[in-house]
Amino acid sequence: MEKHELVIVGGSAGGVQAAMCAQKHHDLTDIVVIRPEVKAMIPCGIPYIYGTLGEVDKNILPDTLLGEAKLKIGEVVSINSKQNSVTLENNEVIGYNKLILATGSNPVQPPIPGIDKNNVWLIRKHPDYLQALASAMDNASHIVVIGGGFIGVEFADECRKRGHDITVVEQLEHCLQLVCNEELCVRAEDALKDRGVKVLTGNTAKSIGGDGKVEFVELNDGSKIECDLVIIGIGVVPNTKLAADSGMEIGPTRGIKVDEFQRTTISGIFAVGDCAEKYSFYNNEPVALRLASEATREGKIAAANIYQPQWRNIGAIGVFSTVVGKTAIAMAGLTDTQAEKLGYDIVTGEAQAASKHPGTMPDAEPMRVSLTFNRRSGALLGGSACCTMTAGEVNNIMAAAIVNRMTMEQVALFPIGTHPFLTASPLAYQLSDAASDALHKAKR
Amino acid sequence: MEKHELVIVGGSAGGVQAAMCAQKHHDLTDIVVIRPEVKAMIPCGIPYIYGTLGEVDKNILPDTLLGEAKLKIGEVVSINSKQNSVTLENNEVIGYNKLILATGSNPVQPPIPGIDKNNVWLIRKHPDYLQALASAMDNASHIVVIGGGFIGVEFADECRKRGHDITVVEQLEHCLQLVCNEELCVRAEDALKDRGVKVLTGNTAKSIGGDGKVEFVELNDGSKIECDLVIIGIGVVPNTKLAADSGMEIGPTRGIKVDEFQRTTISGIFAVGDCAEKYSFYNNEPVALRLASEATREGKIAAANIYQPQWRNIGAIGVFSTVVGKTAIAMAGLTDTQAEKLGYDIVTGEAQAASKHPGTMPDAEPMRVSLTFNRRSGALLGGSACCTMTAGEVNNIMAAAIVNRMTMEQVALFPIGTHPFLTASPLAYQLSDAASDALHKAKR
Repeated sequence: MEKHELVIVGGSAGGVQAAMCAQKHHDLTDIVVIRPEVKAMIPCGIPYIYGTLGEVDKNILPDTLLGEAKLKIGEVVSINSKQNSVTLENNEVIGYNKLILATGSNPVQPPIPGIDKNNVWLIRKHPDYLQALASAMDNASHIVVIGGGFIGVEFADECRKRGHDITVVEQLEHCLQLVCNEELCVRAEDALKDRGVKVLTGNTAKSIGGDGKVEFVELNDGSKIECDLVIIGIGVVPNTKLAADSGMEIGPTRGIKVDEFQRTTISGIFAVGDCAEKYSFYNNEPVALRLASEATREGKIAAANIYQPQWRNIGAIGVFSTVVGKTAIAMAGLTDTQAEKLGYDIVTGEAQAASKHPGTMPDAEPMRVSLTFNRRSGALLGGSACCTMTAGEVNNIMAAAIVNRMTMEQVALFPIGTHPFLTASPLAYQLSDAASDALHKAKR
Repeated sequence: MEKHELVIVGGSAGGVQAAMCAQKHHDLTDIVVIRPEVKAMIPCGIPYIYGTLGEVDKNILPDTLLGEAKLKIGEVVSINSKQNSVTLENNEVIGYNKLILATGSNPVQPPIPGIDKNNVWLIRKHPDYLQALASAMDNASHIVVIGGGFIGVEFADECRKRGHDITVVEQLEHCLQLVCNEELCVRAEDALKDRGVKVLTGNTAKSIGGDGKVEFVELNDGSKIECDLVIIGIGVVPNTKLAADSGMEIGPTRGIKVDEFQRTTISGIFAVGDCAEKYSFYNNEPVALRLASEATREGKIAAANIYQPQWRNIGAIGVFSTVVGKTAIAMAGLTDTQAEKLGYDIVTGEAQAASKHPGTMPDAEPMRVSLTFNRRSGALLGGSACCTMTAGEVNNIMAAAIVNRMTMEQVALFPIGTHPFLTASPLAYQLSDAASDALHKAKR
């Protein structure tokens, strides 16, 4: 029986990061990564295949990242945790000393009548499937995107770049509502509309109609949207069959139960990424957050911990960003709704200023930050930034502030750097000023 | 005698921020800001007048920022701290209950023979002076910039945009050497050279020659640079005459001595900005850091503390950024040299990756982060980012991490957000990876 010190099942973000980190951290080279796909996709890049990038081949996760880890193409169908081995679909058995599961997730298939019609697509992370979608899109003109979360919004924006007529259908009141404050949701919707995308919120797809091939989507309000292609992006479900079949416990949000060291309930087996349960930084409760950035973080943690607990996962806060047209949207931590649901008495602060200074600098645009604090402790709970292209990194300042439980005072007063081309003025730096605004409100 | 609850002497970044914050924090409206300049300059914008902005009037700090605070144009010549009053050059006496000094700094005038010749310019924050410099520049073709710190580098780059022939003379081995690691200094120099600027380091101006008007600069190595205009930007000296004359203690770096609440040694009088002494976050020792972003931070702190100590200044870490051509350079905290001088045993980590992901995204460029940690405690001491336009905000993530004394593990593993258009890949996010790199090195 072929045997390896470390076997990693899954070769997307989490699995690859685990392979990279195990090499750096333990100088380990006897690693094998087993994945079913001949080529792996960069998960966050998938929507961009259809507009900005233009082809599937520009969105390949390069296998060179694996370094000295070996790559085996195949599907693991079972784990024997007594014998420390995995079995592939071709009956090949591979032994392991340590095992990391990074089996990812699958797109949710909603029980909509007609979902099996031709030209109804899910977002699968398989290059051949995604290539087939690209080809199908070449012959489509009217596209309905079901789901107005990040994936739906990004697909809508990118497909619009190809000139398609696009309608987004979202069942909640707003797109992005599960992870963004209302203000940001509205900005994203406005940006989509400015780009010529039709946005239908507070409505759901009741059925998909057509003669074999999709011809229309019927909504709950009775209206019909004619279309020749449907993309469904309403979320993912962790791929945990392998883990569950071998007796690992599954958590309440359907991920593989793990502890703070990414250990599953079976000794020697770790789980990372979309297949693993996530726990909230705020209260340690299970939380459904599936992000490539979480996956890579967990990949590092698991790899470091294979021989003994070293790195602890402090929990997920949820750090999201996207771009619609030229509008960047970024959100870290809890939305106001989430914060209130967790029982926090919140105080929010806001600030807007030109993204460069003076405001007369070329390409200076309004940039806005909103911060939500725990009124009692003063700690930052969440924040958002929009709409300039630095919002993604400003979001990461907020993430750093959240995990350090920085208070309004601390956020308002820590030393920041400013420069005419790179940031707002030091007199109006949005993050500091939003914290000051919260401070002044908290005193009332 | 006219009397006000709060008198602020100086109307640049620190003074204006103090006036803004006193209004927000205490609902105080009886504030007067006294400054000699009819119009105030945005300090960081000054070099950009000469290229990007094109005119002095595009770099005015708008008086509307003062809100309900009154503005008085005049020069305060003395303080009577027994009577709680200040006297202006026209003998007008104005009483105060609380006084904030934000008198700024003056450019250092080096004792170079010939410095008094026509067309030798310092960088004074006076609009008329700066306008006269712009006019003089219109008639100049060869310019020598003496001093390769931020101000010198920015002036060189901006003046080059007007088509002048530019030579920068820096006495240290590298431009920016006092605040940046060597790698960054070299990048800035290379960017200047790519822009056609001549950079002469390790050399000093021995004399300025010419018949009344400058005709050449003679260097210490005996060479002569022909030129018709000289700009001197070798630093600033705190403007503390008023404070010293009225008995306030002056600190070792020549700023007005202040405590952690920005209180001077005279009761009821506070000092902020370039005129005030700065203290290191790392060891509380006086440190010569004069930055607009420090000034505004101190302005807020002083304003909040006028009635009782509320906000504490945690100290300065030094957070700098600039842009040369298309190359952004950013540095937070200690350079390696500074860290070693303070006695830290350091370990550094580095990471470079495309600024967007996949690397095939349009306009993706290499972005590099370097981090320096205290080997013993693991705490982040300093970091740098270059060369993309998000470096300024990445720098502020590092600043947040430094003030929170985040360790290598914490920086490597805190949740960050990534997006194809906005950041590096989650598999290669530079800040996390630089921390991981340091961790792996620290184990050896």
